[in-house]
Amino acid sequence: MAEHLQWTDDFDSPHEECGVIGVSSPTEEVAQLVFFGLFSLQHRGQEAAGIAVSDGKQARLHKDDGLVNNVFDAASLAPLKGKNGVGHTRYSTTGGSGTRNAQPFMVETIHGPLAVAHNGNLVNAQELRAELLGRGFGLTASSDTEVMTLMLASAGGPTWEDRLARTLPAWSGAYSLVLLVENRVIAVRDPWGFRPLSVGQLADGGWVVASETCALETLGCREISEVAAGEIVTLEGQKITRRQAMVPSVQSARCTFEFVYFSRPDSQWDGRSVHSVRQRFGEQLAREHSVEADVVVPVPDSSIPAAVGYSRESGIPYNDGLIKNRYIGRTFIEPTSIMRERGVAMKFNALGENLRGQRVILIDDSLVRGTTAGPLVQLLRDAGAVEVHLRITSPPIKHACHFGVDMGHDNDLIAARMDLEELRQVVGADSLAFLSLDGMMLAVGREDGYCNACFTGAYPVSVGAPKRKDAFEGVLA
Amino acid sequence: MAEHLQWTDDFDSPHEECGVIGVSSPTEEVAQLVFFGLFSLQHRGQEAAGIAVSDGKQARLHKDDGLVNNVFDAASLAPLKGKNGVGHTRYSTTGGSGTRNAQPFMVETIHGPLAVAHNGNLVNAQELRAELLGRGFGLTASSDTEVMTLMLASAGGPTWEDRLARTLPAWSGAYSLVLLVENRVIAVRDPWGFRPLSVGQLADGGWVVASETCALETLGCREISEVAAGEIVTLEGQKITRRQAMVPSVQSARCTFEFVYFSRPDSQWDGRSVHSVRQRFGEQLAREHSVEADVVVPVPDSSIPAAVGYSRESGIPYNDGLIKNRYIGRTFIEPTSIMRERGVAMKFNALGENLRGQRVILIDDSLVRGTTAGPLVQLLRDAGAVEVHLRITSPPIKHACHFGVDMGHDNDLIAARMDLEELRQVVGADSLAFLSLDGMMLAVGREDGYCNACFTGAYPVSVGAPKRKDAFEGVLA
Amino acid sequence: MAEHLQWTDDFDSPHEECGVIGVSSPTEEVAQLVFFGLFSLQHRGQEAAGIAVSDGKQARLHKDDGLVNNVFDAASLAPLKGKNGVGHTRYSTTGGSGTRNAQPFMVETIHGPLAVAHNGNLVNAQELRAELLGRGFGLTASSDTEVMTLMLASAGGPTWEDRLARTLPAWSGAYSLVLLVENRVIAVRDPWGFRPLSVGQLADGGWVVASETCALETLGCREISEVAAGEIVTLEGQKITRRQAMVPSVQSARCTFEFVYFSRPDSQWDGRSVHSVRQRFGEQLAREHSVEADVVVPVPDSSIPAAVGYSRESGIPYNDGLIKNRYIGRTFIEPTSIMRERGVAMKFNALGENLRGQRVILIDDSLVRGTTAGPLVQLLRDAGAVEVHLRITSPPIKHACHFGVDMGHDNDLIAARMDLEELRQVVGADSLAFLSLDGMMLAVGREDGYCNACFTGAYPVSVGAPKRKDAFEGVLA
Amino acid sequence: MAEHLQWTDDFDSPHEECGVIGVSSPTEEVAQLVFFGLFSLQHRGQEAAGIAVSDGKQARLHKDDGLVNNVFDAASLAPLKGKNGVGHTRYSTTGGSGTRNAQPFMVETIHGPLAVAHNGNLVNAQELRAELLGRGFGLTASSDTEVMTLMLASAGGPTWEDRLARTLPAWSGAYSLVLLVENRVIAVRDPWGFRPLSVGQLADGGWVVASETCALETLGCREISEVAAGEIVTLEGQKITRRQAMVPSVQSARCTFEFVYFSRPDSQWDGRSVHSVRQRFGEQLAREHSVEADVVVPVPDSSIPAAVGYSRESGIPYNDGLIKNRYIGRTFIEPTSIMRERGVAMKFNALGENLRGQRVILIDDSLVRGTTAGPLVQLLRDAGAVEVHLRITSPPIKHACHFGVDMGHDNDLIAARMDLEELRQVVGADSLAFLSLDGMMLAVGREDGYCNACFTGAYPVSVGAPKRKDAFEGVLA
Repeated sequence: MAEHLQWTDDFDSPHEECGVIGVSSPTEEVAQLVFFGLFSLQHRGQEAAGIAVSDGKQARLHKDDGLVNNVFDAASLAPLKGKNGVGHTRYSTTGGSGTRNAQPFMVETIHGPLAVAHNGNLVNAQELRAELLGRGFGLTASSDTEVMTLMLASAGGPTWEDRLARTLPAWSGAYSLVLLVENRVIAVRDPWGFRPLSVGQLADGGWVVASETCALETLGCREISEVAAGEIVTLEGQKITRRQAMVPSVQSARCTFEFVYFSRPDSQWDGRSVHSVRQRFGEQLAREHSVEADVVVPVPDSSIPAAVGYSRESGIPYNDGLIKNRYIGRTFIEPTSIMRERGVAMKFNALGENLRGQRVILIDDSLVRGTTAGPLVQLLRDAGAVEVHLRITSPPIKHACHFGVDMGHDNDLIAARMDLEELRQVVGADSLAFLSLDGMMLAVGREDGYCNACFTGAYPVSVGAPKRKDAFEGVLA
Repeated sequence: MAEHLQWTDDFDSPHEECGVIGVSSPTEEVAQLVFFGLFSLQHRGQEAAGIAVSDGKQARLHKDDGLVNNVFDAASLAPLKGKNGVGHTRYSTTGGSGTRNAQPFMVETIHGPLAVAHNGNLVNAQELRAELLGRGFGLTASSDTEVMTLMLASAGGPTWEDRLARTLPAWSGAYSLVLLVENRVIAVRDPWGFRPLSVGQLADGGWVVASETCALETLGCREISEVAAGEIVTLEGQKITRRQAMVPSVQSARCTFEFVYFSRPDSQWDGRSVHSVRQRFGEQLAREHSVEADVVVPVPDSSIPAAVGYSRESGIPYNDGLIKNRYIGRTFIEPTSIMRERGVAMKFNALGENLRGQRVILIDDSLVRGTTAGPLVQLLRDAGAVEVHLRITSPPIKHACHFGVDMGHDNDLIAARMDLEELRQVVGADSLAFLSLDGMMLAVGREDGYCNACFTGAYPVSVGAPKRKDAFEGVLA
Repeated sequence: MAEHLQWTDDFDSPHEECGVIGVSSPTEEVAQLVFFGLFSLQHRGQEAAGIAVSDGKQARLHKDDGLVNNVFDAASLAPLKGKNGVGHTRYSTTGGSGTRNAQPFMVETIHGPLAVAHNGNLVNAQELRAELLGRGFGLTASSDTEVMTLMLASAGGPTWEDRLARTLPAWSGAYSLVLLVENRVIAVRDPWGFRPLSVGQLADGGWVVASETCALETLGCREISEVAAGEIVTLEGQKITRRQAMVPSVQSARCTFEFVYFSRPDSQWDGRSVHSVRQRFGEQLAREHSVEADVVVPVPDSSIPAAVGYSRESGIPYNDGLIKNRYIGRTFIEPTSIMRERGVAMKFNALGENLRGQRVILIDDSLVRGTTAGPLVQLLRDAGAVEVHLRITSPPIKHACHFGVDMGHDNDLIAARMDLEELRQVVGADSLAFLSLDGMMLAVGREDGYCNACFTGAYPVSVGAPKRKDAFEGVLA
Repeated sequence: MAEHLQWTDDFDSPHEECGVIGVSSPTEEVAQLVFFGLFSLQHRGQEAAGIAVSDGKQARLHKDDGLVNNVFDAASLAPLKGKNGVGHTRYSTTGGSGTRNAQPFMVETIHGPLAVAHNGNLVNAQELRAELLGRGFGLTASSDTEVMTLMLASAGGPTWEDRLARTLPAWSGAYSLVLLVENRVIAVRDPWGFRPLSVGQLADGGWVVASETCALETLGCREISEVAAGEIVTLEGQKITRRQAMVPSVQSARCTFEFVYFSRPDSQWDGRSVHSVRQRFGEQLAREHSVEADVVVPVPDSSIPAAVGYSRESGIPYNDGLIKNRYIGRTFIEPTSIMRERGVAMKFNALGENLRGQRVILIDDSLVRGTTAGPLVQLLRDAGAVEVHLRITSPPIKHACHFGVDMGHDNDLIAARMDLEELRQVVGADSLAFLSLDGMMLAVGREDGYCNACFTGAYPVSVGAPKRKDAFEGVLA
């Protein structure tokens, strides 16, 4: 099927790489808890999913390409018996035998089984990979997860926590890791705290660690707290042990994009409700870039709270103007002439009665490659909008992310190539404005502690020369 | 897999049975146009999909269980060559070999191929079925669609339009039919106009008929109009022919539930924007059942416009209070103890910061079996809401639908068994109120011409004794 | 995948269309008995399989493309509960949605469910089909089975046996039918007795009817006898009822090819062991066409008994000279240059040590399109055979079969286009000889009672003008 | 599906573990050559298949559970572009995620890609595995293939051939390995020469190495020769390089069972035709254990040549007495009462006319667990045989194989637990006799150089304490 284009999902949004979860419970229901938890993290990755469970002696793994619901059924879940388990949902596999890079990545080690689920990206993965190859290792995948797993397998120290503590100093970049070993689950977050990771307690006394708090809430967890930057957290039945293994970075480097786009609105990030911050993005944007108009319209769904905020602050009424087709997914039917021209119409339709004769403020969360904004503006005009003012709830993205988000290379980023007026002309809006960096952080409520490298180029960790996502793909495909 | 419960989709909503579409085009791209059109009708049925295409000599059919995107790929679409085609998406198959009742239903007749895609339900299907059996027919499916198809195949008259005109008088109930014959597409709508059906013209001059206008807009159609009640519309390349075959019912009987729940908000029904009517439902509900509160919260997604309307009219601020997991689908994993208790939490999560200490007005579109409202109210309370006032944008549903909507039997309907105070207690709300029938029609903007039988029991067409959906399942399973 | 050629199975053999089976048992194990019985009939058709079972009230059907073992698993077999069932295995579906022509064909009728499994071919199917279409029927498939089923459904008479008896006179051609109705299984064989059909009694007292006796033996049946030509046999639990519904043809017209190729060697046909008759074919061939040689080599597997017989009669030693790859099946990989030249080598390899310097008599069962014989002769020569004398255990096939065997059209048949010497040159043999018609019947042990139309053109039933297999495909594809 | 028994394939035969193939060609057709070659080796393993191809820069792999024909289609084969490739077909995966142990096993190393296809078994795999774990490796599979691969990856030496030469001394046991590296294919065979491995030249000048000569012949190879024990053979386009890396064992230890059962009859083993040796087994058996009887009957298919040999030598006529159902495969339908009793009847049926009243000599190739012989003897008796004399073309198997054949443990072997008379009674034969070890070797034509450990317990390589097949399964499942 490789000859057919995949097009419908090619809308302009950054791609998060992963959601991770780990559960330790006094019951044997762990696989099921992981399974249902993965549902809540499905928005972080729709390409592959996997669960590994240990019964104290043996660890078992099932993973495959597809949505959580496609990868698992009763038959595949049944053998995953045990009290400790980890799960993973992944945005993209990098080609070839799809499941090769699916996670968790599981190996047998001299210390027993080790399964690793990873969200993030090491900036020195290539160097570490070369180091392992040089030590005579054979690597089966092209992911930094295998590199991390094998480094742990060969590290010294009496416990897995010790081995982690000794290995962490070698890792540069973003990692929110969940490890499954013989009889417990271990979580660790990089000293910069790039990506989210939180723990909470189940009604049965067991513990869950997950990328987002929404997953913890879905499983009914209480006592929810973040895994601290540089902290190792061990979950073992009803027991939790926390150890500050690395000195946290003086300045943490939380990903602002978790607020802008990635996290589910019902999650907490840095103690703040994602939904509320998005509303404040809208309010701040209204303050910074007001314009005379009749209606504020969001690009559904991620920009709805910001549009509500913009409306509140500006006093311009909110209304729906675009309806999203929730069912359109990845299709391998290559559109022929008529449908090719319809493009964005497959995914969005305009509500003419709310747009006709109106001056519209269109709220979107970000401008990455800039492929969707133009067609959306045109869609509004075709539906009768007399003016379209595009307002973006984040600053222009000018630099690739090296910490786990796939935004493409620097030169894929439209704002890296054009100035504001050029951008406005390309998207065809009457006016175009971005939320300022200061305004964004004001809405977040923090002056610092965030990674805004995609806006500023100031990477919290040195990233060397720009690389492609597949740069260390190496010799296997 | 029959032994595993299916639970996650068992939320409290009525089930529409079908979306239909037909395309006649001067080009050979018809199968693809039907395919993309079905995407826009996917919300009307997620269980099965099918497309039949005629090249003027032979008709070819592909149909299977699953979403449009799963049923079709390049390989299955490729053989469907021709200038005329019809498609169908279906809510439920009634068991057994799943594809047996999938549509379109296609036969060879003395007059050439005939494929039928049907949305609706005949109330006299059992009688007609018995009539066919009595004439010596052997029926392969359990659907009224086969009955209609075979009646057409055996009808007299020189053209398919004539045969339709002679057969229509025998059909009692709801039908929006799209027929594929050798060299054209024919659409017909029952004299009561129960279910929607509209036509529009493609950019290439061809014509499309579809259940909802959103599908026509997605394909870029202009000149959109309804197929009139009792009208036969013939599409043949760039030519359209309309013929009023049946005298329309004095009172039309449009389904009000298309506004309440079924139709996509960007569709038009009876010349009104579904989205706008939903907003007016909210406004009217606010006028009828005001209550002192701090925030208006919708059950996403269908109740969002009504909540916006309620907020506008009442002056009480709108805010999101529930986040819906868009990825949860049908799973065959039976939840064990912990997860069973989580129930509705799999699909919805509460936004504590918007609810804590708040008096909440929760807007939902309908109360059918009443299985979801209670858990949702509890979810809001657990998240800190101090009061929850449930407001429903339709009257209490007390009578089963016999015109193509699966709401269950009369005694499945919770409002048929309980009075308002009992309902309030069961759902655990501080107050509960329904939009009045008059208020609903005021919001629609019509005094009559609608079927409100599910609220009133006044069926526009005599339905005989109550029957189960599977009542005429007969002897095949 | 339609663009890829299918090639590996394109060896030169006639294609039988079907195996049928019916079971009536006092136990509920009927579906499983049918399932295991179909295994024994798998050689009669590898393209599709199906089982229908009645529990006395409802009949359930499962059928799909594929081998018996692929079509059925525990989940698909489980719902097929009941004491009466029928099964079918089919050689080829005629394209389009594959399962459309799969069998059993099942309908609901005024008299309850009716499922039909058919082996054979009606020569007047087109006329009967036109008759049904003319009566206003809509036909979903392109098979004569649907025609037969619908004729039965609309026939008069108080019992299914009566309706059969009244319908049989309309059917011209070959049919070994097994019917499932509400509470019993009914079998019938055409008055010419073209295709085999036998009954036997299970250890539990129930009864089985099947295309070949090998299936009856596999299920442990005793009291095995043929369904007579023109006989209707009713199986109902431990009861069997036999009724001579049609006067048998003065001359029966058993298919000689059941001996030559189709039947499993452990089956009985006309009271004779297929294996023994094949050995006698070889003996007779040796008497008719002796040649000086060193070794007798069969084309495995069907020609092994004949080669043994030839060896015995001629005194020339038997030895294996060709090994067949049992695993090669249908592949959709189109061979590129190197492999294309290897052709027959994919399926057969020569045993050099048995062939080197030898004068070889190669025994094959038939010459149909003549595509395999040439490459096989060459394979033997390449392996060192100094002479290759091809001996065929049947006469030259010069006329298409119209009674259920797909040999292609008259002009696909190589012996219809060439004389003996031309054939010899084309296959590249040192000598070529066919068993004579008289010799063949001598080996069978009958002077008449057989259909040898493919050799002689003397069709026992008038077949009208030559038609393609897909001639009455009609307007559906 | 784990709850359903798998039964139909549980017949009494030893299980070979693998077939391997490697191709280096000047053309880009390598993947297809490997694909077609795997067909010829399918009899050596039907559980999983895989192909890895290198284009000189990147290596690509596709492998999955299933027959070659199910694992590969045009889409999965297309990306496997390159001039060097290896393939593998495998008998059994050891549970868990099936593909985990499928081969080729491929890794990236400091020296580029390395893919390994292995037939055999290391007796010191557990020790080597522990060594790797101790060095800090993480192992993803439970196979000795991964162990071998990672040892090679970490070995010293400038070329892969050098690294092989340095690693070979550590490996104890049977291995016929085919390696794919960047730009060539490398084959190596253990110093004992347990398992077969041969090379041959393609028509285009390229080279092929494969487990059996039948695969080489199928691909049209000339110049076929064995890879010598201890030899490393490098294939690179039209170039072949051979290097005697290990001193061959003084006594080679070829597996006699390749003659008895595994190899296809058209293969050569030790320069002898497998088919011819099987015939001589029969002749020798007749000399050793003659008995007065009327007919010699083989258990098809593997014992047919031996039965022909027995017949020739004894003068007692050969005839078929058992017909094998070629289509029965692995089914997951658990047989209920009636079918359970039928057991072996599913796979074999008796030819009554050849057995009735006859004194039968039944020829089978081996007695392993002894589960099939008894039912077969009974089948013959039920079909009328008055005496059944069972003759086995190999000595009693009393010791488990540790060199790549799965015969079960010592105590699974029926001849390890019973003496001859007990065995005879268990199988119910009138007499039972085994070919003597000397007689077997006489038929082979060698006095020594063969591993007969399964008969004698004299393992050519020390095997330590008896272990289960899954003994070093370790902690992953």
